[in-house]
Amino acid sequence: MSISIDGVGGDGRLRVSPRDDAGREASRHWRRRIDARLAELVPPEDQAPSPLHQAMRYSLLAGGKRIRPVLAIQVATDLGASIEDVLDVACAVEMVHTASLILDDLPCMDDASLRRGRPANHLVFGEDTAILAATALLNRAFGVIAECDRLPAQTRIDLSRLLSESVGSHGIIAGQFCDLRIRHGHGDDVAGLTEMYGQKTGALFVAALEAGARVAQVEEPWVRAVREYAVNLGLAFQLLDDLLDTFGSSGDVGKDTRQDDGKSTLASRLGAHGARQEVHRYVESAASALEPLGSSGLQLANLARDYTHATMERVAAI
Amino acid sequence: MSISIDGVGGDGRLRVSPRDDAGREASRHWRRRIDARLAELVPPEDQAPSPLHQAMRYSLLAGGKRIRPVLAIQVATDLGASIEDVLDVACAVEMVHTASLILDDLPCMDDASLRRGRPANHLVFGEDTAILAATALLNRAFGVIAECDRLPAQTRIDLSRLLSESVGSHGIIAGQFCDLRIRHGHGDDVAGLTEMYGQKTGALFVAALEAGARVAQVEEPWVRAVREYAVNLGLAFQLLDDLLDTFGSSGDVGKDTRQDDGKSTLASRLGAHGARQEVHRYVESAASALEPLGSSGLQLANLARDYTHATMERVAAI
Repeated sequence: MSISIDGVGGDGRLRVSPRDDAGREASRHWRRRIDARLAELVPPEDQAPSPLHQAMRYSLLAGGKRIRPVLAIQVATDLGASIEDVLDVACAVEMVHTASLILDDLPCMDDASLRRGRPANHLVFGEDTAILAATALLNRAFGVIAECDRLPAQTRIDLSRLLSESVGSHGIIAGQFCDLRIRHGHGDDVAGLTEMYGQKTGALFVAALEAGARVAQVEEPWVRAVREYAVNLGLAFQLLDDLLDTFGSSGDVGKDTRQDDGKSTLASRLGAHGARQEVHRYVESAASALEPLGSSGLQLANLARDYTHATMERVAAI
Repeated sequence: MSISIDGVGGDGRLRVSPRDDAGREASRHWRRRIDARLAELVPPEDQAPSPLHQAMRYSLLAGGKRIRPVLAIQVATDLGASIEDVLDVACAVEMVHTASLILDDLPCMDDASLRRGRPANHLVFGEDTAILAATALLNRAFGVIAECDRLPAQTRIDLSRLLSESVGSHGIIAGQFCDLRIRHGHGDDVAGLTEMYGQKTGALFVAALEAGARVAQVEEPWVRAVREYAVNLGLAFQLLDDLLDTFGSSGDVGKDTRQDDGKSTLASRLGAHGARQEVHRYVESAASALEPLGSSGLQLANLARDYTHATMERVAAI
């Protein structure tokens, strides 16, 4: 059985095969579990220093698609782990993601005013508190992983190392740094932009998915397959984000749009049509990467197609 | 044998007993080892993204007293570990400390211009890069601990958890948040200031020293004794820092002084004489806390006295 045959027609075009209702209901259920658990994993608002905890919770519990933790749970449960095994690890990934959003929005970075449908953290709590809240969320992510008593110590060590590599100066942080440089015209060719997307977005997709696979204790060839899927899905996701940014309005998207006006993005370099084709190519590569997993990879492959299909429809509808 | 009898006269006053030359030479040797290892543990300057790595190295390798990693090495080696066992853990603590200094100096925080005798990180690299460099250093600290292959996985987990608690929204980050509020007149009584010092400075002293004890795999009562020593030494250290800030010049101290003018500090609340007495009281309490360790605690107790004595002399000489 080849998953790619399932998803791509003989003409090489993506054949969208949305997940069944059970798959979608599972994602909705996981999002509720993630939201509830995130609320438990950071201190309550009334605990001193209260404004700091308010700021952490404001951004962390503001909704969001939770795509990274859902992916972590999807892969872990598909590969034999329980949701309880992976839930806190998934939440740690979301904490890192939220920390990166708070920092990205700062006046000295993207200077954004809207995020997840609400005013950016620093506009509500001040720049100083926003920076401290972001730092506290990143730091808490490592604490959460260390506290995962259900997992063997060696697995937790592997996860901590993985998270540090994904965040670090070759991962998300490198991506944000290069994104800022690209605003000033450095490295804004397709190769440079693709590398930056791989760091800024892809690195945490890799962390989320590899973490799920490691929680499920699968062998290295399967971990490598999941990583390959993650790299490609991350690029597809960021390209879709470009397309939404270019064609959406703030009300549709929940964050500032046209942020990229006057700035090179991969979508602007490739054009709308080219960007759509690239999305399909990346999703196809993601699905193909899962072939070694056999039927255990089907839900993941369909999740990628489903998300892409839904987002493409939003782009078309806007 | 009681260590406190060794350090405090019958009149209850501190009897300074500087360490012997061998002890001081050991500290100098460790500082060289720490500096050399820190340089290896972060990417080289010419590795992309180069300015980000330059910014990380600029603050991390700018010298500094290295008091926290030296304390980690002192306690670990006194309690039976080798310097190789503890060196990377000590370096991780120094990375966290450096990250906190970069963030503290930002315009939206303390707005400081001089640190470790050089212009503050954001003045050289820009605010955006400074924030990313600080985040990368904090993140790298967790990676370094995860990579300590000499240590059992469970010990690394314990260290990661310890570091996260020390940094977090009840530790250094809480301390920095409360410090900013105190600038605006909130909680600037002796109790509030002491709590803030315990978080902002004490928490990482506790992390450094408890980490050293955990590397040496000692029993819990000894870990608790070392923590108690750390809490008291941290408070003494911060009070000495107040005194240097009040009586020193930038050239002497290597960072902005009189930063605290017009702001409540514990030293300004207690007065110079009262602050000196409190330093002695904390150092005495630190030494007493080590009694359960017997002769294994002597070097640590003397290190606390030695550092205090030397700093008091600097304050008097200025």
